[in-house]
Parts: sequence; C-alpha cells; structure tokens
Amino acid sequence: MDLKTSDLNQHISSQFNEELETLRTHVLKMAGLVERNLRTAVGALETMDSSVMVSIEQAEQQINAFEILVDREVMNIIALRQPAAGDLRVVMAISKIVRDLERMGDEAYKVGKLASELSSDQPPAAALNLAASLGRQVADLVKRAVDSFVRLDADEAQGVFSEDKAIDSDYESSLRAMVTFMIEDPRSIGRMVKLLWVFRALERMGDHATNISEQLIYAVRGKDVRHTEVSESDIQSIADE
Amino acid sequence: MDLKTSDLNQHISSQFNEELETLRTHVLKMAGLVERNLRTAVGALETMDSSVMVSIEQAEQQINAFEILVDREVMNIIALRQPAAGDLRVVMAISKIVRDLERMGDEAYKVGKLASELSSDQPPAAALNLAASLGRQVADLVKRAVDSFVRLDADEAQGVFSEDKAIDSDYESSLRAMVTFMIEDPRSIGRMVKLLWVFRALERMGDHATNISEQLIYAVRGKDVRHTEVSESDIQSIADE
Repeated sequence: MDLKTSDLNQHISSQFNEELETLRTHVLKMAGLVERNLRTAVGALETMDSSVMVSIEQAEQQINAFEILVDREVMNIIALRQPAAGDLRVVMAISKIVRDLERMGDEAYKVGKLASELSSDQPPAAALNLAASLGRQVADLVKRAVDSFVRLDADEAQGVFSEDKAIDSDYESSLRAMVTFMIEDPRSIGRMVKLLWVFRALERMGDHATNISEQLIYAVRGKDVRHTEVSESDIQSIADE
Repeated sequence: MDLKTSDLNQHISSQFNEELETLRTHVLKMAGLVERNLRTAVGALETMDSSVMVSIEQAEQQINAFEILVDREVMNIIALRQPAAGDLRVVMAISKIVRDLERMGDEAYKVGKLASELSSDQPPAAALNLAASLGRQVADLVKRAVDSFVRLDADEAQGVFSEDKAIDSDYESSLRAMVTFMIEDPRSIGRMVKLLWVFRALERMGDHATNISEQLIYAVRGKDVRHTEVSESDIQSIADE
C-alpha cells in the first residue's frame, strides 16, 4: 500500500468515526426524548393532568424526525464509508435500535393520551397507582438499556433481560388486579379497559428495551442472542431448502 | 475502465442479483409462514380447537430462524457487494420488513395461544365471531402487503394503507361491543379480557402490514412515507442542533 492510499484510508476511517459519533449522539437525543415522554405520561397517570399532551406531542414529532434522520445517516455511512464487519454490525444495530425507540415513543404517546382521556372519567386511585408504578419501572429499564448502549456495555445489557422478566411478572399480577376491579364495579369497565391499554403499552416498552439490549450485544460481541431456541442447524435447513 | 474490471463488475452485479433473489425468496417463505399461522390461529377462534398450537409453534420457530438467516444474508450482501443507492435501499428495506414479519409472527402466535386458552373457558360465540372476522380481514391485508412486496408494486402498497384504516375502524367498534358484553355479564370479564388481547394483536398485525408497505414504497420510489407530519425543516433543525 503506498502512502497516498494509506492516508486516504486513515482519512476515511476518521470520517467514519466522526459520522458514527454523530449517529450515536442523535440516537441518544432520541432516546432522551422517549424517556422524557414516558416519565411525563406516567406522571399524568397519578396527577390526572390532561395538559401534558402539548409537550408530549411536540417531543413525539421530534422523535419521529430523529428516526428519519438517523435512517438517512445510516444509509449514507454504509454507501460512502463501506464499513467492514465490526463497524457494519454497529451501524446495522443502530438502524434497528432506532426502530425500537420510535415504537417506544408511540407507546409513551399512547400512555399520555390514555391518561389524559382518563382524567375526565377516572378509574380508582389504587388502579392508577399500579399503572404508574409499573410505568416507573419501565422508565428505569429504558434508561438502563440506553445507558448500556452509550457505554457499549454488553454486561449491563444482560441485566436488562432479567429486569424485563420482573416487569412482565408485575404486569401479569396487575392485570389480575384489574379484572378484580372490573368485576367489583362493572360500571367502571369502560375506563378500566382504557387502563388495560396503558398496562399493555408499558409492557411493550419493556420488550423494546430488551430488543435494544439484544442489538447492543450483537453489535459488541457479534453474537445473535435473539431466539435462543433456534439452532444453527434450524437455520441451515431453511437456508438450503 | 478496462475489460477485466468491467467483467468483474458484471460478475459482482450478477452475484448481487442472485443473492438478492435468494433474499427475496427467504422473505417470501417467512411471510408465507406468518400468514399461515395467522389463518390457523383465526380458524381456532371459531372452532375452539386447542390442538393447533403444535403446528403454530413449529412454524413460529421457522419464522424466527428466517429472521436470523435473512439478517445474516443482508449483512453479507452489504459487506461483500457494497450495493449502491437504489440496491442498498432495497436491501435495507428488506432488513426492516423482516423485523415486521417476525413481530407479526409473534402476534399470530399470541392469537393462537389465546384461542387455545379460551377453548376451555369460552366467551360468547358472537364475540368470538367478531374477532375471527377481524382476523380474516387482517390476514387478507397481510397477504396484500406481501404480494405488493413480491411484485415491488408501490401502488398496491398504497392500497394497504386505506385498508388498514378500515380495519382500525372495525377494531374500535368491536372493542365497544366487547365492553357491552362484559357489562352484560360481569362473570365473563376474565375470558373477555383475553379476547381483548386477541383484538389488540390483530390490530398490531395490521400496523405491521402498513410498515411493510411503507418500506416497499421507500425501496421502490426512494421516498420516505413514514411520519408525513414531519417536514424537511424539522429534520434539518434536529440535525444541526
């Protein structure tokens, strides 16, 4: 390799690093907005303050803009820098993580919307508190998943999986409590069904947080930890069919 | 360009086309499994046949294996063939579509599981029929989204959007009917909540079908049709911050 090519490669590689850093910054800002919207929406479950939707809607639009922006940046990096194996894995993982963040944004928006609808037709405080408590757990999980992404910390990402299992279990027992509330007061069924959707949205956000951790582990270790029930021979047999 | 380089380029391009064809075939097989699982699960809502889970589980494992396989193929194509703008767009769209198909597979699995749980504690036939009817609409929508992907037909993909709106509206009115069923017979609330999750899963599958169509339109036309409320200046302002 002559000097010129080597300079060029170094130049490309430093540009790549710079662009990757921009990409990471944008993902982080996007994740920050998602977490903020979730915490605002969860707060509204307790305060029954319907005015939160103004700020939630504004942030939601920014979240969506970030999805489009990051997708474009991913395309440009791949097309112009042609990253090799490890770098490509990081870029592809970011492209997937952004998708999960956008979905989480949708779910946070949904929680805010439902909270604000419920403010004029309130379920029992005990039911709302259960939802808010699960919401805070989910917000902490989201933060943890995002932090592990910032530090590219695969061990921390592993912790997200076990925490999500604890959330799933709280989710299930909360649902049983909701059914009891409904049976005790059938007139509350309409609003309680709305609260069921809140629980569902929160549970989905937990799943998206684990998706982020799966992608991070893949990016860092090159190991696909999704679908651990699928073996290499399963994959080979469908590939060869 | 000398003859040798041109030969090499042609060789790379024909290899690219061959690999892209394999990729498309795998996505189609995966989509076929998702549609089959959905139709089986929806059928079980009417027949209350709990034995369907054996075949659904087997297909679900294949769906997951396809996700891993296609993701690997996407990585390999990008790393080895370094596709240019239009080709890269198609490959990136496929990487996103596969994610939606896998989620649809999860939702179809959920519907099957709920149908089989409900077989021993059945909701009113009228309620089950509403769910099955929505399920058939969604299965048709999934088929339509996949067909438009096979033919790379962006116009057909547009049709998916309006059809999904019709499904959302049927979903909303079905939910109102479910609330009525619960109020009329509070003892049914437990099983009716399970049926609510069936409706939710079906509605989510409709959303995933529209995601597939959005990706297809992006691949074919190079136009991002997600988040139409986001303007170019919105994107510019967050990029420059």
